[in-house]
Amino acid sequence: MEAPAGGPPPLLQPVDDAARQLARRLIRGARHGALAVLRPADGFPAASRVLLASDFTGRPILLVSGLSLHAKALANDTRCSLLVGETGKGDPLAHPRLTVFAEARFIPPEDHSREGLRERFLARHQKSALYADFPDFRFGVLEPLGAALNGGFARAFELTADDLLDETLEGLEAAALRARDHMNADHGDAVDMIASRHVGETKTGWRIATLDRTGFEIVRGDTLHRIEFPGGPVAAGGYRDVFVELVRQEDPSKNATD
Amino acid sequence: MEAPAGGPPPLLQPVDDAARQLARRLIRGARHGALAVLRPADGFPAASRVLLASDFTGRPILLVSGLSLHAKALANDTRCSLLVGETGKGDPLAHPRLTVFAEARFIPPEDHSREGLRERFLARHQKSALYADFPDFRFGVLEPLGAALNGGFARAFELTADDLLDETLEGLEAAALRARDHMNADHGDAVDMIASRHVGETKTGWRIATLDRTGFEIVRGDTLHRIEFPGGPVAAGGYRDVFVELVRQEDPSKNATD
Repeated sequence: MEAPAGGPPPLLQPVDDAARQLARRLIRGARHGALAVLRPADGFPAASRVLLASDFTGRPILLVSGLSLHAKALANDTRCSLLVGETGKGDPLAHPRLTVFAEARFIPPEDHSREGLRERFLARHQKSALYADFPDFRFGVLEPLGAALNGGFARAFELTADDLLDETLEGLEAAALRARDHMNADHGDAVDMIASRHVGETKTGWRIATLDRTGFEIVRGDTLHRIEFPGGPVAAGGYRDVFVELVRQEDPSKNATD
Repeated sequence: MEAPAGGPPPLLQPVDDAARQLARRLIRGARHGALAVLRPADGFPAASRVLLASDFTGRPILLVSGLSLHAKALANDTRCSLLVGETGKGDPLAHPRLTVFAEARFIPPEDHSREGLRERFLARHQKSALYADFPDFRFGVLEPLGAALNGGFARAFELTADDLLDETLEGLEAAALRARDHMNADHGDAVDMIASRHVGETKTGWRIATLDRTGFEIVRGDTLHRIEFPGGPVAAGGYRDVFVELVRQEDPSKNATD
């Protein structure tokens, strides 16, 4: 697999932890992406915009109508790629972006994993609750096969699926949900402080949408920010400690989790 | 061809002038897009970010390195699609976007059309001048076959190539270049006034990058805005009149073109 490039020729760099972390952050922090599929009638490559979430280990999650082109395409051929990484001010090619090559699978309504995926998706796309349970809608999970990371000019990497996904630990996903609900219900002021000091958002009303082993996303309306845990991946049962630490960093007099 | 959708099921609407204008504006105003191609080794759909310009009639223009995945892919199979339409604040699916299905062709160094395409591309991507003439780089033109427009929730349209492209008139492209150079060289204050009143940019130093029959793009550093001519497509030789009119709208006491 080769790295996509738009600017100067891509020079593949050896994959290091910084590249892995950047790739994971691009997936975790993406509210939307460009999904490329194969048009069923003729195999034409077709790109369209999709809303995104990720599962606990880092697989991208979609929500698609069975009537859409990309749903019909993926029902016919599961191969796809997903471009994530938003641009902002400045040169669009100076912003890092990632193409994840993947196989898509749709989650049947009765599948045991659906409720957890639905929970993670709707936590960051609240308006999608209006149609998520319509009979023609399905959640889709993209199983990564590899990825091309372009970290800016002349910073290109080829990543494996293992480079993109977090290993999980027994009970950690359930612990993450409890930690989120506890923080949102009882420590909204601490979440607002994290929003203010870590990502410069001064309005209040932020809440934690989704957690994983290496960080979490906060949301307010249609704005989302990814925040990494400064101490690295969370150990078994360890969300209490990381939030205590995050809040202590904000204000040493305060201990927001109890 | 079916419309891509991420939100509620797409309901195809009859194509009208407002849809055509929106689609053309999305192409003309795009600084970058997501290009989907077929990976040569295995036919996998591959999406990556590309910088964009458009030719005088509205065909997207790319600049790609022969070492990049998408250049190798398009050399092997010219079929591609291009997703344009930037998101901003708010729901990503509430922002209009367009998928153009196209055949790509690369422009050989000695081709008579290269200089005009190079001029239009570099007028909006000045930094690309650093590598545009490297021996492995080629300009590419996407010949549209059709497009899927999603103008926001439940506003989906299928467009033909004719819906996307402007008819040109003898001598009009050359007249557009002269009008641009004249405005930039002698009426920079008028361009800044247009930037201020039409798109709310209060800094000075704006210049016109590219013109076509229905409007133009102004740039300043990495910021670009598309502005439509309020009176519709320009008639033969008519750029003087449209700029006189645009500047009169700003300040009735002033006549910036002479």
